[in-house]
Amino acid sequence: MNCDFVALANAGVRALQPYQPGKPIEELQRELGLDHVVKLASNENPLGPSKRVIEACHRAVVDITRYPDSSAYLLKAALSERLDLTPEQITLGNGSNDVLDLIARVFLSTGTSAVFSQHAFIVYPIAAQACGARAIVTPAQNWGHDLQAMADAIEEDTRVVFVANPNNPTGTSVSEKELDHFLQQVPENVLVVLDEAYFEYAQSGMQSDSGASDGLGLLKRYQNLIVTRTFSKAYGLAALRVGYSVSQPAIADLLNRVRAPFNVNSLALASAEAVLDDEGYLTEGRRINQEGMKQVSQGLQQLGLSFIPSLGNFLCFETQGEAMPVYQQLLQRGVIVRPIGIYEMPNHLRVSIGLPKENDLFIEALSQLI
Amino acid sequence: MNCDFVALANAGVRALQPYQPGKPIEELQRELGLDHVVKLASNENPLGPSKRVIEACHRAVVDITRYPDSSAYLLKAALSERLDLTPEQITLGNGSNDVLDLIARVFLSTGTSAVFSQHAFIVYPIAAQACGARAIVTPAQNWGHDLQAMADAIEEDTRVVFVANPNNPTGTSVSEKELDHFLQQVPENVLVVLDEAYFEYAQSGMQSDSGASDGLGLLKRYQNLIVTRTFSKAYGLAALRVGYSVSQPAIADLLNRVRAPFNVNSLALASAEAVLDDEGYLTEGRRINQEGMKQVSQGLQQLGLSFIPSLGNFLCFETQGEAMPVYQQLLQRGVIVRPIGIYEMPNHLRVSIGLPKENDLFIEALSQLI
Repeated sequence: MNCDFVALANAGVRALQPYQPGKPIEELQRELGLDHVVKLASNENPLGPSKRVIEACHRAVVDITRYPDSSAYLLKAALSERLDLTPEQITLGNGSNDVLDLIARVFLSTGTSAVFSQHAFIVYPIAAQACGARAIVTPAQNWGHDLQAMADAIEEDTRVVFVANPNNPTGTSVSEKELDHFLQQVPENVLVVLDEAYFEYAQSGMQSDSGASDGLGLLKRYQNLIVTRTFSKAYGLAALRVGYSVSQPAIADLLNRVRAPFNVNSLALASAEAVLDDEGYLTEGRRINQEGMKQVSQGLQQLGLSFIPSLGNFLCFETQGEAMPVYQQLLQRGVIVRPIGIYEMPNHLRVSIGLPKENDLFIEALSQLI
Repeated sequence: MNCDFVALANAGVRALQPYQPGKPIEELQRELGLDHVVKLASNENPLGPSKRVIEACHRAVVDITRYPDSSAYLLKAALSERLDLTPEQITLGNGSNDVLDLIARVFLSTGTSAVFSQHAFIVYPIAAQACGARAIVTPAQNWGHDLQAMADAIEEDTRVVFVANPNNPTGTSVSEKELDHFLQQVPENVLVVLDEAYFEYAQSGMQSDSGASDGLGLLKRYQNLIVTRTFSKAYGLAALRVGYSVSQPAIADLLNRVRAPFNVNSLALASAEAVLDDEGYLTEGRRINQEGMKQVSQGLQQLGLSFIPSLGNFLCFETQGEAMPVYQQLLQRGVIVRPIGIYEMPNHLRVSIGLPKENDLFIEALSQLI
């Protein structure tokens, strides 16, 4: 037998390229034989975990032979209270990536289309493509989303528009006023996914005047809005995988039909509950990020390198020519950043904001190359 | 605005009923005001976690602000060595449910069909339906899969056949010889998913003469075979969500295109590695299960209740009439089992094999009702 399994796969899947995650530290150390490595490649929280989370994990681990609570009763109650909404509006995911996939699986299929911006988070095209939907990509404006172009790009068969605010990898954002104006133009039968993975950082970003919005405030006026958030970034739970969406209950009900019943593991549930209670952790993470953002921005300026102002915990800088050689040379010096050629940004690199010492090492290594 | 979002969803999703998981102990205790509850509802390992797993979690938790290793380098290496195969054959899932979903998302869509048996694991119809595929359900034979009927039921548009061995909830199984004969009849362009979630128990089941097969042995001869397994059962990691499939690398490559890059969390990876190294845990779990199976079987016999012989860590018994009242009365006595009306078995209940004392409590509670 020599069957062509690719030919048997759904059309969208055949054309799919898998997401390329950042290089794990261990893998790089293996490859390069380095002792010390600084990873500023995956927009992770550099603080390390909240103490309450560690305690919660220690408590929860004794029950790991039991399935997780599929209804996530306690976490949904905690989120509802914190965000002033009802548990029926929440859909939990194995990271917000899972929620984005669920949205695509419910509303996208062959014969439909999804709209998103150039340079937008790569999971949107992957999720849409996997479901066989057509991608409508609008040109970026100053590296960010051109919301007017996105509204104008909606076609008869469009089911979903993805808006990342702030966007990864560019760090660009749109204001609440701009979003509102955009949502007014979107037909009510087209879903708008507002991906706020970096919301908690944006709230306290350097440029808070520019006013990155809180999408939850728009939910009451726009029934076709789905806001997604995550515990992977400011809450520091990337390893555990927990994200969520907030929407009308009718939409959450549809997402939950496709959701695997135990998609969020028990330690993720316990940890998310614990960190929601740890206001100090969030505050400290924001402070570290704000200071680090200033440090890295100034360092880049001193090196004469331009960068895209960012409301996230990362920024993109120009490498004066092809980025890959700079990426490779940084690797040799034990600093991992993220090349973003796949985002049509071959002359930029994305660097996550780390602890002061990590930021120093990055700037120091970069200064040796420029 | 009053948009009908259900009408916007893909056809398969509109008709979908979400999976109903077993009732969490805490929820039942809340509802009934019970102090002590025995949960024999979700085929969980009653041993509690392996000590090595607890240690591994304690070590891994300090890094939970970092994303998991998307390539699962270490776990794939350990599994490959253990199972005598290559890492390229493995696809990891957030539980084997995730892998079953991936298979459906890659190979099923509107205009295709999937074959499975009456009384088979409910995730097959859900996964197929979510992708818009037509379900071809073959009648059971003595509560188990009728493999000949399944082979005969394959149609032109059939892409996937799901075989659970042993099956959940019935505990029935097919022998390697029967499977081999079946696979010979399946066209090479139809994928056969052999779900071996309970493999590690079946290997040492009471009826080992009847020879539940090891599907991995068939992989070399049947390129269209996908074997799925899980760490949720005999390995005791239900809370952490880790399962996998083994297939030709070409099939694994397709599944990995749709797989979310960080679908398996870091603690799950570390724990699976740790428990693979703990041969004693598996041995003890099998022993406990074997003895408990004997204990529960004898108890049911003494009560004059018939049951379906099972190679898993659970069994289905007849309730002499409608099962739901018996289920409710067991609940009142603090014993949670699983009603399986949704499996077209309204006169059976499924009970998981617990520790000797838990089995006693179940039999004792049941004897008060019969």
